[in-house]
Amino acid sequence: MKLIGIQSDGDHSIGVVEDGAVRPLATVDEFYADVDGWLDKAKAGTAGFLALSDLQQVPFVPATAKVLCVGLNYLSHASEASMALPDYPTVFGRWASTLVVDGATIPVPDHEDGLDWEVELAVVVGRRLTDASESEAAAAILGYSGFNDVSARKRQFETAQWTLGKNADFSAPLGPVLVTADEWEGTPDLALETLVNGEVMQSSRTSSMIFSPAAILAYVSKTTTLEPGDVIATGTPEGVGFVRSPVRLLVEGDVLESRIESIGAMRNPIAGSAQRNPQQRQ
Amino acid sequence: MKLIGIQSDGDHSIGVVEDGAVRPLATVDEFYADVDGWLDKAKAGTAGFLALSDLQQVPFVPATAKVLCVGLNYLSHASEASMALPDYPTVFGRWASTLVVDGATIPVPDHEDGLDWEVELAVVVGRRLTDASESEAAAAILGYSGFNDVSARKRQFETAQWTLGKNADFSAPLGPVLVTADEWEGTPDLALETLVNGEVMQSSRTSSMIFSPAAILAYVSKTTTLEPGDVIATGTPEGVGFVRSPVRLLVEGDVLESRIESIGAMRNPIAGSAQRNPQQRQ
Repeated sequence: MKLIGIQSDGDHSIGVVEDGAVRPLATVDEFYADVDGWLDKAKAGTAGFLALSDLQQVPFVPATAKVLCVGLNYLSHASEASMALPDYPTVFGRWASTLVVDGATIPVPDHEDGLDWEVELAVVVGRRLTDASESEAAAAILGYSGFNDVSARKRQFETAQWTLGKNADFSAPLGPVLVTADEWEGTPDLALETLVNGEVMQSSRTSSMIFSPAAILAYVSKTTTLEPGDVIATGTPEGVGFVRSPVRLLVEGDVLESRIESIGAMRNPIAGSAQRNPQQRQ
Repeated sequence: MKLIGIQSDGDHSIGVVEDGAVRPLATVDEFYADVDGWLDKAKAGTAGFLALSDLQQVPFVPATAKVLCVGLNYLSHASEASMALPDYPTVFGRWASTLVVDGATIPVPDHEDGLDWEVELAVVVGRRLTDASESEAAAAILGYSGFNDVSARKRQFETAQWTLGKNADFSAPLGPVLVTADEWEGTPDLALETLVNGEVMQSSRTSSMIFSPAAILAYVSKTTTLEPGDVIATGTPEGVGFVRSPVRLLVEGDVLESRIESIGAMRNPIAGSAQRNPQQRQ
């Protein structure tokens, strides 16, 4: 089942996507308060389809969602960034306000020469997890989506903490849909790619991860309770821009494409810093 | 003017505190949508006082608030932690779900030997800030409060990114009240202290900060837009537990007291990990 977020009659809602049409299911708060119940209703439902093109897409998670990102989860990316292989998942945070959907522009802040790409598999939590085992965590995965952890490298490396460089306004495409976990047996092994203006920059498979999604969720839950709707971005493979010679970064006019097999592609145009103003966004 | 958060008739609301009584002002969403308008109404209002003891306090910021913390903002703490003096504010993030109020228990996760204290001056944002100058940032400060950036040191230092060790469940006391900025001329110079079971562990003044609140807000706003209700914790002075010999950490049964001059004191008992379960919290 494929889910998206929509803005409908002033409500932030979850819809089911089938053949390019969308069936509104519940408000985002209703949905994450009873994920299993709404998934059952979605499977049984038939009526209420709207044309996808008539709807305003918004992120399919609540505005309160925690977005936890993992650094260095692919051996090849840790190597290219000259970083030691980790004993534990390296977790940093994003606020949900940085999330955008397929098609939204991503502005370059004035202090950066450009932005860097990091395509990732995103995992969305379906049940509360506190002190979970790996098997409990695996059973609590609502589904998978695509993510690009677009990074402001200058800010990221001005201090030892990456947080600010990972929270530039409107810098995190999530989508294009949330595919429920029941579409696969166990953890899916999916191809993932970043393209810039059609040129392939990253190309790998999620089976190359160091820490599995369930291992990451279990580790986090020992410290921080995960709630329905929280997102874990599971790290990026090799091929980012700041380690290339010459360095290659996303600048105004570029188009970033993030593709994950069986989930879909997102295309996000890169814009100037004026697009940081909500009133001026296209 | 002193503000608190209250849970009243199912709504998360903001109230004005005067002489131990509280006047409900607006829901938290209404308040942060028109901060200046509600402050004007609060000054004019007279009716509606409730006894503080009859109310359930909750954090005075929205559940979507970003909580940005600054590391190494006091020369003496950077020195005791053997960290180089920063050229830029070292920013890391908390999710608002980790905030608690005066009196709430703070649970120690099972993986930690105890938790460490970091008393801080918190700044609450009153107006949207994008690419702000320091003077614009100074004018956008709604007010000041106390904060303790209670830290899970083992998790904090397992990787290079501190985020997870700074987001243990229910680990960040914010309060006891939000004092509006108009109570001072410019940036206040306040004494701040941590006491553990009555023993003074940290004692300094906010005038010892390296980066001023306005400088931090301006720096952050170049990358990440700050919204009304966002919180900046401005860093802690010397005297934390993990650098002591022998190491001193907060364990079940201890009482953490966080004091800031002219704002007040919070007392938070330290509890076992069972208190991470929302249903079991006292």
